[in-house]
Amino acid sequence: MIKQLTLIGVGFIGGSLARALRTSGQVQEVIGLGRNLANLQQALDLGVVDRIETSMARAVHDADMLVLAVPVGAMAQVLRDVAPYISDQTVITDVGSVKGSVVTAARTALGSYFHHFVPAHPLAGSEKSGVTASVGDLFRGQRVILTPVAETEDWALTRVEHMWRATGAETVTLSVEEHDATLAATSHLPHLLAFTLMDLLAREPVARRAFDFIGNGFRDMTRIAASDPVMWRDIGLANRAAILQALGGYRADLDALGTALEHGDAAYLEAFFTRARQARRGIDPK
Amino acid sequence: MIKQLTLIGVGFIGGSLARALRTSGQVQEVIGLGRNLANLQQALDLGVVDRIETSMARAVHDADMLVLAVPVGAMAQVLRDVAPYISDQTVITDVGSVKGSVVTAARTALGSYFHHFVPAHPLAGSEKSGVTASVGDLFRGQRVILTPVAETEDWALTRVEHMWRATGAETVTLSVEEHDATLAATSHLPHLLAFTLMDLLAREPVARRAFDFIGNGFRDMTRIAASDPVMWRDIGLANRAAILQALGGYRADLDALGTALEHGDAAYLEAFFTRARQARRGIDPK
Repeated sequence: MIKQLTLIGVGFIGGSLARALRTSGQVQEVIGLGRNLANLQQALDLGVVDRIETSMARAVHDADMLVLAVPVGAMAQVLRDVAPYISDQTVITDVGSVKGSVVTAARTALGSYFHHFVPAHPLAGSEKSGVTASVGDLFRGQRVILTPVAETEDWALTRVEHMWRATGAETVTLSVEEHDATLAATSHLPHLLAFTLMDLLAREPVARRAFDFIGNGFRDMTRIAASDPVMWRDIGLANRAAILQALGGYRADLDALGTALEHGDAAYLEAFFTRARQARRGIDPK
Repeated sequence: MIKQLTLIGVGFIGGSLARALRTSGQVQEVIGLGRNLANLQQALDLGVVDRIETSMARAVHDADMLVLAVPVGAMAQVLRDVAPYISDQTVITDVGSVKGSVVTAARTALGSYFHHFVPAHPLAGSEKSGVTASVGDLFRGQRVILTPVAETEDWALTRVEHMWRATGAETVTLSVEEHDATLAATSHLPHLLAFTLMDLLAREPVARRAFDFIGNGFRDMTRIAASDPVMWRDIGLANRAAILQALGGYRADLDALGTALEHGDAAYLEAFFTRARQARRGIDPK
């Protein structure tokens, strides 16, 4: 049972976490703090938080669970802001989509309390954002990746695992490096590809006509291009080494595909599409 | 009312068309012919066709509506095969995703009966294939693009329009060139991008781990990578000029994105993602 959950950032993910914990009865009080007072007031009106705070000292001091749910690019500053008010009972965790940059910032900012920091990433992204879009069952059946490091204390890890399991999620552990390389390929690169496809169609001379003739395939492929630009700017910068590696592989494959098209290489195309279909069917067997 | 609909190719699209016309009472008899006898037998068992034929002469001779529903790469041969048996009452149409190559093949193969040929493309693609996946409401609320040329006779165009409207679809007219450029951007390029993303993840060293951590974004982006490889090989080859143009634009945009990531250009990334989100929201206003 969490006595006081303090959320720094009460948006889609933070709000959904608070809702899920309240529903499961695993939290006594939820306190929200964030830059946008109107958004905090909405969170209060929606019953997502019990109390909003504008003072970091008051928000953090009595928290036994401190969750940082801000964009990855804001993590370093928020870690510095909370550091002076952390106490021996406080577990600190985050929900960032990149773990290397957050762990580095936490190690610098938190001092000896870095041992209380449990890096976490719930795989429940959405193109939606804001507390008004938050829902209590967002994490049910989803995975939360935890990336504890050598310094992470077991009791802190256990408490974060319990918190996420109370939302209906499954927790799994990866190294920081495994997490960032894997997510670059499965999530970060796909988002960049979707943004790029959407922007291309919006700019091309063909654009105004094209929008009348898009089908479900295009809709599905670009759904995530409606995602929050600041969040994705931050992820792009924070995980750029791993993303550039994945992007390099993708660009090489597109180059090869372009060459095959230019040469009318039917055998290449059929073998390529067949491999891809087989791999895709492995994801959702029918 | 169609007296005899002859389907050359009874797969997902051909089968769905037959089902829709039977449901609407707009066809008296449906005859199916195709290369795969087991598939034709399934179509007969499912009640999608009334009769299967192995002789092109018998299948085509009395048809007042002849629908070619084979992969784009097979169209030229099928057009040559049906040509000897077409009569003055026969309207010929197709469902190909590329129109330029099909129109060229039809002009060569059909002789004076090219005037009876109405190029058509129902925008109801799917990653599914085969008659067992066909459904009677596939075209309801969808668009069918017709690309009549100078020679196309009005009465033939009208009959094809009526046929598609009987399935619940809306018909729209574009030039062959408009169709092929638009679909290259909205459908063909997105399919190639999805195949490429799926294949990259299946090959990468990261692959076996990655498959455990894919989310809904990746699922949606690669759904169409389960599409039929032969169909997409044929589309790639038949529309390669327009596809290469769209692909060139996409690759240039990815290059610029890669440069922005390398330089840590936060302003570029945020502006780019913001434009894309705005465009995507224009598709599905909330």
